[in-house]
Amino acid sequence: MNIDTPALVVDLDRLRSNVETMGRTVRSRGLRLRPHAKTHKCLEIAALQREAGADGLTVATLSEAEVFAAAGFTDLLVAYPLFPVGAKAERLRRLLDTAEVTVGVDNAAGATAVADAAAGRRVPVVIEVDSGQHRTGVGPSQVVRLAEHCHALGLDVSGVFTHGGHCYGSPEAPEEAASDEGDALAEAHDALREAGFDITLVSAGSTPTTGRPRPPQVTEERPGSYVFYDRQQLALGACAPEQVALSVAATVVSSGPDRFVVDAGSKALAMDRPSWLVGHGAVWSHAGATVSRLSEHHGVVESGPGAPAVGEVVFVTPNHACNVVNLFDEYVIVQAGDVVDRWRVAARGRNV
Amino acid sequence: MNIDTPALVVDLDRLRSNVETMGRTVRSRGLRLRPHAKTHKCLEIAALQREAGADGLTVATLSEAEVFAAAGFTDLLVAYPLFPVGAKAERLRRLLDTAEVTVGVDNAAGATAVADAAAGRRVPVVIEVDSGQHRTGVGPSQVVRLAEHCHALGLDVSGVFTHGGHCYGSPEAPEEAASDEGDALAEAHDALREAGFDITLVSAGSTPTTGRPRPPQVTEERPGSYVFYDRQQLALGACAPEQVALSVAATVVSSGPDRFVVDAGSKALAMDRPSWLVGHGAVWSHAGATVSRLSEHHGVVESGPGAPAVGEVVFVTPNHACNVVNLFDEYVIVQAGDVVDRWRVAARGRNV
Repeated sequence: MNIDTPALVVDLDRLRSNVETMGRTVRSRGLRLRPHAKTHKCLEIAALQREAGADGLTVATLSEAEVFAAAGFTDLLVAYPLFPVGAKAERLRRLLDTAEVTVGVDNAAGATAVADAAAGRRVPVVIEVDSGQHRTGVGPSQVVRLAEHCHALGLDVSGVFTHGGHCYGSPEAPEEAASDEGDALAEAHDALREAGFDITLVSAGSTPTTGRPRPPQVTEERPGSYVFYDRQQLALGACAPEQVALSVAATVVSSGPDRFVVDAGSKALAMDRPSWLVGHGAVWSHAGATVSRLSEHHGVVESGPGAPAVGEVVFVTPNHACNVVNLFDEYVIVQAGDVVDRWRVAARGRNV
Repeated sequence: MNIDTPALVVDLDRLRSNVETMGRTVRSRGLRLRPHAKTHKCLEIAALQREAGADGLTVATLSEAEVFAAAGFTDLLVAYPLFPVGAKAERLRRLLDTAEVTVGVDNAAGATAVADAAAGRRVPVVIEVDSGQHRTGVGPSQVVRLAEHCHALGLDVSGVFTHGGHCYGSPEAPEEAASDEGDALAEAHDALREAGFDITLVSAGSTPTTGRPRPPQVTEERPGSYVFYDRQQLALGACAPEQVALSVAATVVSSGPDRFVVDAGSKALAMDRPSWLVGHGAVWSHAGATVSRLSEHHGVVESGPGAPAVGEVVFVTPNHACNVVNLFDEYVIVQAGDVVDRWRVAARGRNV
């Protein structure tokens, strides 16, 4: 393959298989699938997800929503507690005029800002519930109070969502986090119904918790990383090695008796490293050697026998796909060892 | 200030002062200053550095060199052991035809690739010496052998360079790392002179080691981060708090009794965190509160009394400026509390 390194490489067959498998898994349970597009930020991959039965997309920011809406993906959930003022308020209005956008809220001030920004337009909102990550979201017992505040502001309360992000706490965490997501959503759903809210959206989601048992109140899954998986998902048991579809191609630029150095550093592999994972990436072609240190343009790999020579290209499996994708402008699409296409990371940097 | 968050904010007065102070410091010691442009990736800032007496720029990649050369910054040192083959070889040739580019080498195979790529064009090369970081570079005693290999290939050996990156090992490390840089460069210089090489470039560099005593053989300094500094440089004693010129503006989007959450996560602040630094950024306006956790779009700050309310904008000092800059497309330039300009991060993502 004649590619300039470092490069973001996707195995097309694995990507397609991951997208189709997840579509089947979620549909077979009678749930809707609204994949999180922050992982791939790519129109071609969103199209594959739609073909595989996805019901709209999840995004994290207004600017991601703008990119996908402009390309015809107009059923969008912003799974984030927006605070749209100034230019963002104007952008939200334009978006509401052109797409079906549901907006996350987790507090009264944010809900008020959304209502003010909407300036009379209909805005479906979805209340974020904290299922144990303790990041954003209200406790299930506080959902009704916030829903009533939204209703009084003229916002349509569509339902509730949660992200059991504590599933990333350890390799043993996903099972309990999935159960926590289900419990929190069921409690919030029942409380809202009892208070007279006719909600239709009860949305759970993360790649490690999708596919696990859900209570009947849950209607939707929002996994993101499953399109590629990564080293972290593998360690969490969310995938098998042969499902990992993303790598960073890197050239060996230097070598010594105890190490070799590749031209993929933190500006290509990102610095994400959960406490339970050693190193910053794996080079499976060389006995699973791990990238032990990253500078901005250097990945230092402790090498054993059979280390690659200077000039060889190796493929590094990154720890966390989402932050890696956000560093590149394009994907190099590979099939059976050949470069078959290049796709743009259309929403790269659209994090505002 | 009416800016969409997260945003990359530069205090113009502090930036100018940092650039001018470093120019004076290095020139007053009779050294040349070749700032590393990987920190800022910005034409306007490179122009300020030139006005303040910089002698050319340092870059890390061919694509950074292309951006700066196209804008008239034609005296460039690629401080990296390039391995230019395929499209990169063609790009190196075009660059050599339009700019004065000196290229790093640290091994025979890389030197051969540079000579092959140059296809007869004159290429000044500079040999990387390992002064203790143990990343790239040859030991001082191996420099002559590699220089002779380069000479036999028809490459012009201009000199040696090192980066004492082990200065980032702990807050006490910079003093010894500076001394290691000087020792390694002096030894390499003397060995090359003795072997008959008429070298003119003996280049040291990092922000924490610049300004410290140097042996007389050293001719040049290559600091990068000093234009902005950051939380890491502050902890290393490389600057005072009032010199830190870069921050990430973020809006508080959620809050609880023990925390508040801002809309700057790892896609805005990057995940860099040396082992000797707690947290992912500081909010100095709120008692130096630290960002204790990062998701992609969330920064979780443990809050005490006086925490900001939802909707307030705060300014987060990031741990490591270089990786933060690479996440944004533009700087918001601020002076005396007002937005006075926007500058492009022209080489954002130019890491190939």
